[in-house]
Amino acid sequence: MNDIKFPEGRTLDFTAIGRLCIDLNANEINRPMEQTSTFTKYVGGSPANITIGMSRFDLKTAFIGKIANDQMGRFIRTYLEQNQIDTSNVVNDYTGAVTGLAFTEIKSPTDCSILMYRDNVADLLLTPGEVDEEIIARSKLLLISGTALAQSPSREAVFQALQYAKKHGTVIAFDLDYRPYTWKSQEETAVYYNLAAEKCDIILGTREEFDMMECFEQEHSDHSTASRWFNHSAQIVIIKHGKEGSIAYTKDGASHRAKSFPAKVIKTFGAGDSYAAGFLYGVMQGWTLEKSMEFGSASACIVISSHSCSDAMPRAEQVHEYIARCERGEIVV
Amino acid sequence: MNDIKFPEGRTLDFTAIGRLCIDLNANEINRPMEQTSTFTKYVGGSPANITIGMSRFDLKTAFIGKIANDQMGRFIRTYLEQNQIDTSNVVNDYTGAVTGLAFTEIKSPTDCSILMYRDNVADLLLTPGEVDEEIIARSKLLLISGTALAQSPSREAVFQALQYAKKHGTVIAFDLDYRPYTWKSQEETAVYYNLAAEKCDIILGTREEFDMMECFEQEHSDHSTASRWFNHSAQIVIIKHGKEGSIAYTKDGASHRAKSFPAKVIKTFGAGDSYAAGFLYGVMQGWTLEKSMEFGSASACIVISSHSCSDAMPRAEQVHEYIARCERGEIVV
Amino acid sequence: MNDIKFPEGRTLDFTAIGRLCIDLNANEINRPMEQTSTFTKYVGGSPANITIGMSRFDLKTAFIGKIANDQMGRFIRTYLEQNQIDTSNVVNDYTGAVTGLAFTEIKSPTDCSILMYRDNVADLLLTPGEVDEEIIARSKLLLISGTALAQSPSREAVFQALQYAKKHGTVIAFDLDYRPYTWKSQEETAVYYNLAAEKCDIILGTREEFDMMECFEQEHSDHSTASRWFNHSAQIVIIKHGKEGSIAYTKDGASHRAKSFPAKVIKTFGAGDSYAAGFLYGVMQGWTLEKSMEFGSASACIVISSHSCSDAMPRAEQVHEYIARCERGEIVV
Amino acid sequence: MNDIKFPEGRTLDFTAIGRLCIDLNANEINRPMEQTSTFTKYVGGSPANITIGMSRFDLKTAFIGKIANDQMGRFIRTYLEQNQIDTSNVVNDYTGAVTGLAFTEIKSPTDCSILMYRDNVADLLLTPGEVDEEIIARSKLLLISGTALAQSPSREAVFQALQYAKKHGTVIAFDLDYRPYTWKSQEETAVYYNLAAEKCDIILGTREEFDMMECFEQEHSDHSTASRWFNHSAQIVIIKHGKEGSIAYTKDGASHRAKSFPAKVIKTFGAGDSYAAGFLYGVMQGWTLEKSMEFGSASACIVISSHSCSDAMPRAEQVHEYIARCERGEIVV
Repeated sequence: MNDIKFPEGRTLDFTAIGRLCIDLNANEINRPMEQTSTFTKYVGGSPANITIGMSRFDLKTAFIGKIANDQMGRFIRTYLEQNQIDTSNVVNDYTGAVTGLAFTEIKSPTDCSILMYRDNVADLLLTPGEVDEEIIARSKLLLISGTALAQSPSREAVFQALQYAKKHGTVIAFDLDYRPYTWKSQEETAVYYNLAAEKCDIILGTREEFDMMECFEQEHSDHSTASRWFNHSAQIVIIKHGKEGSIAYTKDGASHRAKSFPAKVIKTFGAGDSYAAGFLYGVMQGWTLEKSMEFGSASACIVISSHSCSDAMPRAEQVHEYIARCERGEIVV
Repeated sequence: MNDIKFPEGRTLDFTAIGRLCIDLNANEINRPMEQTSTFTKYVGGSPANITIGMSRFDLKTAFIGKIANDQMGRFIRTYLEQNQIDTSNVVNDYTGAVTGLAFTEIKSPTDCSILMYRDNVADLLLTPGEVDEEIIARSKLLLISGTALAQSPSREAVFQALQYAKKHGTVIAFDLDYRPYTWKSQEETAVYYNLAAEKCDIILGTREEFDMMECFEQEHSDHSTASRWFNHSAQIVIIKHGKEGSIAYTKDGASHRAKSFPAKVIKTFGAGDSYAAGFLYGVMQGWTLEKSMEFGSASACIVISSHSCSDAMPRAEQVHEYIARCERGEIVV
Repeated sequence: MNDIKFPEGRTLDFTAIGRLCIDLNANEINRPMEQTSTFTKYVGGSPANITIGMSRFDLKTAFIGKIANDQMGRFIRTYLEQNQIDTSNVVNDYTGAVTGLAFTEIKSPTDCSILMYRDNVADLLLTPGEVDEEIIARSKLLLISGTALAQSPSREAVFQALQYAKKHGTVIAFDLDYRPYTWKSQEETAVYYNLAAEKCDIILGTREEFDMMECFEQEHSDHSTASRWFNHSAQIVIIKHGKEGSIAYTKDGASHRAKSFPAKVIKTFGAGDSYAAGFLYGVMQGWTLEKSMEFGSASACIVISSHSCSDAMPRAEQVHEYIARCERGEIVV
Repeated sequence: MNDIKFPEGRTLDFTAIGRLCIDLNANEINRPMEQTSTFTKYVGGSPANITIGMSRFDLKTAFIGKIANDQMGRFIRTYLEQNQIDTSNVVNDYTGAVTGLAFTEIKSPTDCSILMYRDNVADLLLTPGEVDEEIIARSKLLLISGTALAQSPSREAVFQALQYAKKHGTVIAFDLDYRPYTWKSQEETAVYYNLAAEKCDIILGTREEFDMMECFEQEHSDHSTASRWFNHSAQIVIIKHGKEGSIAYTKDGASHRAKSFPAKVIKTFGAGDSYAAGFLYGVMQGWTLEKSMEFGSASACIVISSHSCSDAMPRAEQVHEYIARCERGEIVV
């Protein structure tokens, strides 16, 4: 049991707004990208990955976003639809914008990096007028992602989506997902992250991301971070501390930790997205925060043991089975 | 008496943030600008004019803004200082930005227009990091103006100023001052005006300005406009209906009108700024809304009977005397 | 007598392409601009000034340029027409561009400066397709000015004009008129100045301007400068050495100097433009280079003794009389 | 025998300036790109391909260009060096620019298309000051490519390279390589193509490319095109008429055609680059134009029968053998 009350009578469980892009994952791994020669194409982008995850968990999902009018854009739309995600509010760009790219380099399981193409990308061209109020009114949960705040008009589209969610009582989750390369300055970033976070019920981020948001503040502790948002709309604040694990803070002053699981890591990409999907799924099932966090952790383990992010998102049975196998001691690192 | 409670123990009565520019007023009036040959230079910009007005009313005032590193910028700083306005948070730009210009054309008392130079202007380059938290913490009232929201980084500087004002309990007034030419789209404008207005105690604007802010809404009545903001932070919402006069709505559901005064109009520029200065002065004196609005109207009459905006801002005695003369029937149109 | 052969049977003597702007001259002189309060409006821009000068000398003139669709633009067109300049190829901008401004500050006769407004100006938006081939084909002399090369599409419009002039045998004069603030880098400037200068018959500039053009070269002497252009199209290269006077180099290897005249200097603005007008007028009359240079110098003296640039351009009789008075010793400094 | 005289005593045969990018060729061909899932990475860009071709023909080659400071940039430099191309004037960008990408889609041998990423690319950031005069002075032939003219500062770098080539008597070849997506307007394109072409000895392009350059002209025939450039510096003008073959025009008024060869076409990409390499190689060997064109055609046949452009560039023996096999009737379509 947790304290989040989702609105009833909604035809959609989960809607996300934001980045839709392409991951080009090096097929030859454990070497620098200079020495790779082939790449495999996947749908990518943090909110896209989370939505694919939620859909694999058999939730009714939709996406609000913008795609290039080209082969990459058409591939994205088709993939989302094949994953039973409602794409009626995935808008085509007609300005000649391109699809964002992320080339992944896996030098070792712990030394991964990304080469991004984020100039003139379609996803940042979504306008507030293109956001469909009705989809948000029909959803239990709206997920926003920090990268969509990086530039106009996508930034305004997210604020408009937040306005609709507040108006209709849709629960709002904010995956901070801070990517410095699309922002002009840390100050600018902090201002918009803060304006958005004030309106959100569930906030998920790393300690570093919360530090960035508090660049105008003196004190940077988990306690002061969580308190700050509880004074606005937040009910759950999850602060991730890397290897030391995540802590969920709740408005009643409690903090919650969950155990973690072993994994045969191929790369670290996608860990946060699969964690978010697993955790939010648990919260929507009415599970305790501990059980939800555990489910998120196990989801993440499955994804980081695979080559892709989006395509590796597990079904609920797989996650349950992973937990069971860990408990039986069948998975060791 | 009115319901606004200003914080005690502050060393500044009034601080404004936003546009500082130059008015170049045609000396030859009642003709198209093509036929004028000389111009007189004044400090301009809505929040600058209001601050000059407040200072003439003997309030302790400060300004938060940015000026070009040139003769125009130096002229502005000097003029503010001559008017006893604290300029310690008026920052110099060093990027080569220019001072915004407004050439005024007075074809007739009712047919006035402005030719604006707003490209690469210094005032829109104020950054959030340049906003002095302490000045806001020391002020009873912070005034923000809509034009400063038009572009980054000034937009973020205003949101940061709002954040400081909320943190320190400084009362916030928002003069909508919507100027379409500095904005990319009405949608973008509405999003940021709404995000700012949510945080403000006193909102002043024309019916047309509120309509712009409600471009995503169905209903556009004074009643729905006022209610919307009372659900956030607002305590007073003033909606100006041109010749039919202004109406002040208060959180208790009441609406307030004040009488207007005759004036020998030279031009309409500056009417809104002098009204705002007069009204806010009254509210800060603890006067009733009716009396405050009356004082605002009389201030406006004095300014529109003069050649300039900033330089014509009256002292309190002049406003009282204007009202007295009107009551004695000495001023007729 | 000079060696330039102008084409016969042309209905226009002189056509210039480039900048049309507004000078706002401080009325209160011999002080910093911070302390001035009124300005007088004049048409400005180097090629505009030269064309006004040529028209006052009773030559048949035309202008190729672009003006803002506002009061300033209409003032410019009207003024040109009042000066008998053909404005049929002065195009209106409809993108919302503004008219360039130059505020002049006269601290003393020898300490003058200009505050420029050059962002988003209409004159730099002239496109190659807007250049009227027929006007160039009808002209004896085409004058180009360096500032029009500073940005696209005006830069391309000038190269297209050069292409038409070459095709039709119109003599080309290049007034270097280098203004650093509109250029991105000195390298970029040098590349386009050189591409343009290769095609020109008469090149006028200061030693500093030629040095800028030679930033990729080792040797910087008048002799090497002149030789360089004689290897392309040039027939006359005038290099101005400030107080030491100007030297005209000709293809036959000769150099020519002319005497200078005393003047009661108010400000230095406009000296180069009036010199260019006077000199080119002399060359078009078939005068010797010495006599042409003398006429240019006397023209310049008249302009720098006046408050404006464009409006002070003299008629031929005035210049002859000025020379005569100097010779009679009636003008002394 | 042909009439081009290459300078003697040079340590480099061939230097190209311009685009260096990455081709990502779909591994699954004969289908739309939406349905491909893996891509293979190759060095690309027309002048890069031609230089690789020239180096495979055992000429001494160098490249003048700019690469991103990332894995893609390092891959490009390494590949060029592995192909014995001097990269001492291949400059690293440090502004965060990316490497241009070209995703190739092969729907059928005759229906191929490219999805380009050309925003914020490093190759267009080469500055004139970064062009090494000495490399051009040491080269017999300099190749420029039209895409490098598309934006500043690369545009100015090419003009500076042309200036050096003229100064040192290096023969100049111009591969028009017009790609509309990097240009703002056809007018702008025509102006700069024409300014560059005036200075070139050998010009290679399609009829459509020459038409674009003549957008300000009335007559568009091969004869008028060739004559136009012979009035400037050109000695050979090659106009390609697609399936009807190419025609080489020479200054003496002659036109030259060569026979074509059969090929088992996989895709059409790279045909122009391998033709240019083969043709220029022949001209540098002192072969007749017919024999040079034949060699170019056979080179092109080899490349279009392969999966890549750059990597498939043949050695001279392979080209000779291809011609021999065609003559023996061993290659039929």
